[in-house]
Amino acid sequence: MPRLKIDACFSPYLYPVYADTESIVVVIDVFRATSAICVAFHYGAEKIIPVATVEEALQYKKQGMLAGAERDAIKLEGFDFGNSPYDYMGNHVKDKTIALTTTNGTQAIEAARNAYKVVIGSFLNIDVLCDWLIKQNCSILLLCSGWKNKFNMEDSLFAGAVTQQIIDKSADYRLGDGCLALKYLYQIGKERPTKFLNYSSHKERFAKLNLKKDIRYCLMPNSAPVVPILEGKFLVKAAL
Amino acid sequence: MPRLKIDACFSPYLYPVYADTESIVVVIDVFRATSAICVAFHYGAEKIIPVATVEEALQYKKQGMLAGAERDAIKLEGFDFGNSPYDYMGNHVKDKTIALTTTNGTQAIEAARNAYKVVIGSFLNIDVLCDWLIKQNCSILLLCSGWKNKFNMEDSLFAGAVTQQIIDKSADYRLGDGCLALKYLYQIGKERPTKFLNYSSHKERFAKLNLKKDIRYCLMPNSAPVVPILEGKFLVKAAL
Repeated sequence: MPRLKIDACFSPYLYPVYADTESIVVVIDVFRATSAICVAFHYGAEKIIPVATVEEALQYKKQGMLAGAERDAIKLEGFDFGNSPYDYMGNHVKDKTIALTTTNGTQAIEAARNAYKVVIGSFLNIDVLCDWLIKQNCSILLLCSGWKNKFNMEDSLFAGAVTQQIIDKSADYRLGDGCLALKYLYQIGKERPTKFLNYSSHKERFAKLNLKKDIRYCLMPNSAPVVPILEGKFLVKAAL
Repeated sequence: MPRLKIDACFSPYLYPVYADTESIVVVIDVFRATSAICVAFHYGAEKIIPVATVEEALQYKKQGMLAGAERDAIKLEGFDFGNSPYDYMGNHVKDKTIALTTTNGTQAIEAARNAYKVVIGSFLNIDVLCDWLIKQNCSILLLCSGWKNKFNMEDSLFAGAVTQQIIDKSADYRLGDGCLALKYLYQIGKERPTKFLNYSSHKERFAKLNLKKDIRYCLMPNSAPVVPILEGKFLVKAAL
């Protein structure tokens, strides 16, 4: 039996059940926090400070730092950014440290804070992420942020894509039941992911917000090839 | 948009996130607690008292009641039954009240105890269960017991089967993301469920226990057409 394991956890709330001392945790919030984080680093951000509450983000903002805050898919007033990847494209993030709080993604980072290693996953960095993970030679836990602690389709589809790519590239991993199920899900959804996700709950959540452009961008593989990793309270770019 | 909702919760641990005041909760532990419960009622048991701890089951046993207890797929010493459906086949359960504690299934019942209604699902009662659910005209939450609070394949496959059957029979339901994903999973697994489940974690868990006969039985649709429902501390047969 393969030495290493990949499993998936479908909610930050469920993380304590899956937590161990040796797995690398990949935090996933495809729409849109982890996509936005990848974009920020791709455009040269130096550090991101993920925080759980708006109050914490506001404290950093008051200290003169750039700060992003999103709740229920909407950018909060008084902040520099929401969680749209487009907010983080451009020279204005270069060499900057940014505080960030979001409805789901930064909550998942918070839940997994004490894991062996925590990295950030999205379609935008999928290939470099998978290569980096295989190089680490560790078990992997794919932590889907979901929506307010419930299972969601887009994070699960991405976790299935990661599972498929890793077992295609390495024979060292066995699959937990969560990843086994997501591998099947990905087989069904991979050809037309936008259409596949059309029936899922984000459609309803985002209906009035005109996020089509964001959604299309967040499903584009490898447009931000970086691996953000948690070091203490900061996310930074991992060496590739 | 359809009035009613079907969603799935993949772990008793996650139940508080999904709990509401109007959904009927279907507790699912295909291998093997909810299959065994259906069999006991099919063979004429009058009541089952699901309890969370071995100590509680032992108290009932000491009072002269029949009692079943299973942990880690093994029947505990000093009890009348484990959680094999075969333990509950025959005249010895007729008109009896049975106390029961299991690793996963009775924990899920415990978690959902205060739901609007709680019923028991397994492949053995799938058709009558779906018909009964549709007749109730309520939203539905499929609560998969999983394995020690982790997602498992067999409960998810069954939840996908229920989802498919209900939307085939009624247009009144919209799907939460969990059920949407499981519907796809069921489409892949339905033709050869035993083979489909062959790669999942129960294989490893049950490897030394020779449970092939149980597994085959637990995947036989409609062999115990009853709907066990929780009334106070007792499971009883619902009127069909």
